[in-house]
Amino acid sequence: MTNTLLILPGDGIGPEVMAEVHRIIDWYGTKRDLKFDVTEDLVGGAAYDAHGKPLSDATMAKAQEVDAVLLGAVGGPKYDKLDFSLKPERGLLRLRKEMDLFANLRPAQCFDALADFSSLKRDVVSGLDIMIVRELTSGIYFGEPRGIIEEGGQRVGLNTQRYTEAEIDRVARSAFELAKKRNNKVCSMEKANVMESGILWREVVQKVHDESYPDVELSHMYADAGGMQLCRWPKQFDVILTDNLFGDLLSDVAAMLTGSLGMLPSASLGAPMENGRPKAMYEPVHGSAPDIAGQGKANPIACILSFAMALRYSFDEGTEATRLEKAVEKVLGDGVRTADLMGAEGGAPVSTLQMGDAILAAL
Amino acid sequence: MTNTLLILPGDGIGPEVMAEVHRIIDWYGTKRDLKFDVTEDLVGGAAYDAHGKPLSDATMAKAQEVDAVLLGAVGGPKYDKLDFSLKPERGLLRLRKEMDLFANLRPAQCFDALADFSSLKRDVVSGLDIMIVRELTSGIYFGEPRGIIEEGGQRVGLNTQRYTEAEIDRVARSAFELAKKRNNKVCSMEKANVMESGILWREVVQKVHDESYPDVELSHMYADAGGMQLCRWPKQFDVILTDNLFGDLLSDVAAMLTGSLGMLPSASLGAPMENGRPKAMYEPVHGSAPDIAGQGKANPIACILSFAMALRYSFDEGTEATRLEKAVEKVLGDGVRTADLMGAEGGAPVSTLQMGDAILAAL
Ligand SMILES: CC(C)[C@H](C(=O)O)[C@@H](O)C(=O)O
Ligand SMILES: CC(C)[C@H](C(=O)O)[C@@H](O)C(=O)O
Repeated sequence: MTNTLLILPGDGIGPEVMAEVHRIIDWYGTKRDLKFDVTEDLVGGAAYDAHGKPLSDATMAKAQEVDAVLLGAVGGPKYDKLDFSLKPERGLLRLRKEMDLFANLRPAQCFDALADFSSLKRDVVSGLDIMIVRELTSGIYFGEPRGIIEEGGQRVGLNTQRYTEAEIDRVARSAFELAKKRNNKVCSMEKANVMESGILWREVVQKVHDESYPDVELSHMYADAGGMQLCRWPKQFDVILTDNLFGDLLSDVAAMLTGSLGMLPSASLGAPMENGRPKAMYEPVHGSAPDIAGQGKANPIACILSFAMALRYSFDEGTEATRLEKAVEKVLGDGVRTADLMGAEGGAPVSTLQMGDAILAAL
Repeated sequence: MTNTLLILPGDGIGPEVMAEVHRIIDWYGTKRDLKFDVTEDLVGGAAYDAHGKPLSDATMAKAQEVDAVLLGAVGGPKYDKLDFSLKPERGLLRLRKEMDLFANLRPAQCFDALADFSSLKRDVVSGLDIMIVRELTSGIYFGEPRGIIEEGGQRVGLNTQRYTEAEIDRVARSAFELAKKRNNKVCSMEKANVMESGILWREVVQKVHDESYPDVELSHMYADAGGMQLCRWPKQFDVILTDNLFGDLLSDVAAMLTGSLGMLPSASLGAPMENGRPKAMYEPVHGSAPDIAGQGKANPIACILSFAMALRYSFDEGTEATRLEKAVEKVLGDGVRTADLMGAEGGAPVSTLQMGDAILAAL
């Protein structure tokens, strides 16, 4: 089977960090005879600059065909004034929606060598390893009606949160499956106390549990309390299951807690394709960081670890994924640090390229 | 002018912590000749047990007449199975909605004596004093259509986020007014990158700023990034302005960061009444804590500080509010601790009543 990969570096630091992933991919081809058929294309502001929209139909079609899409980052102040439908983010949302990538996996992991970077106390975060499963193709990001409408002489901003039973069911299954390979615990978060969509969410998650995963430990928490508990004692969680909007906030909070924001990858998975592999897109959790773009300062690790997730979830190369993750850990343990990781210890930061060099050497 | 107060202790620890507020109120009457005309009534599960609904019409009518409502907490596992419309929370939401309490003020303040309680590092939180202004009567908590509907043979959970220009305008004004009395900075949070309601929010806030508060420093942040920044370096903020749903999550996260959750009060303010005082309700940020209810262990400080906010915002007794706040700080500085505040230092916790005693003595 060939391994096909579509790389979309995007905006800001996207291209820089993706350059290091290219070198890792080459290493696998040369040194481990693990070859990838790579195409590169545009997304976000870069696509808008070239085609006048944040994702061309041709790129969308390509994304549907490959085994995995690897995305850098989208957005930047240059595009702030664009019409809503043309904003860089729409390119990303179109990929998620049309590929139907309903399960967004966001590991929040604290790298031991970086635990002191967290604004939280060391004992609260060291060793932390939780997985947030965020529903990614429905909810308030996509529900209709939406827009800014006129009503009684004034404008009204409108968005709709909608979840069908089937949408909740499938993402719940993803969370339970993951939990079985981890610590067998799922905590589902919504606002069932004030939102009917939360009531349905809770009910369906419970039903999937009772019928298909009775041995996984399941709890439910209101999302606001969940945010609190994440900050208080995140290690109480294993897998957190939540909707698109709450998942956006909670996964960002969790990511920041680890102190390892520049390090965190994500995977967005859909249904299996004909070849048995899931539709998939991988992207770092960090954004396009326009303030440091083009300076060779960005940390490529989140993007490299996103490729590791691709090895694991798309190419069934779990051993190689672990090899890459261990190489990253070794480099961090050795004290190699990009600028974002410079703390009280001092020392000189390495460039994006030098971080790539170090990881290649560790491989 | 008489000072009228409706006290709704509610469920769980509500009645216990409210008992201490009663003693503080008595102290003001006797020692400072500041008298309150107090009525007490039921809300939440307690009201459901008595009347079969979480807020009777008579109580609602009373709430509309008084200068201020002081609420303890609502909810508990006993009521979990109740129909949505009968849940304790609906009582609270009805009060907010019918009194039109659109501006929810949630100070997140770190008490110096308690800084070590935070899961965050001391330097990140010590001295922290930010104010979250949450829109409280609109957005996805109240928008129509809502419910669990049948569609194509399956159930769909539905909620609607709606914001009118006027709703955004008035709460933005509250935030700017507050900022003027504080550090003159407002950061407004939404998801204008994916939600049209966020676009309108951003636009109206900017307009209110440019037209009426050009001297207040205004910034905009996506709510997920806002959650991150709250965890990373909360002291960058002064006033945070946000909608009902984001405000629910972000204010809880902010509260937890301070390590002073059992200490944090809130005020919910509406339009001025005939006597010039705003419609107002005050409540602690913590919940009903059913696990410790009835044991005399609960920390009454958040509820007492909610009364302090009432002194300031409803009764124009800023000096007396400060007196009460200083008394609380003194007691904490002296090392008096309820069970929730017991840390590594050790020592024996005081009861709810003893904490009340200590604060009365400090007054
Ligand atoms: C860029 C933006 C559209 C996106 C989102 O809100 O989903 C981002 O914040 C994320 O979490 O992946
Ligand atoms: C009890 C609940 C309805 C309420 C809310 O979600 O607004 C609470 O979480 C709060 O923040 O005051």
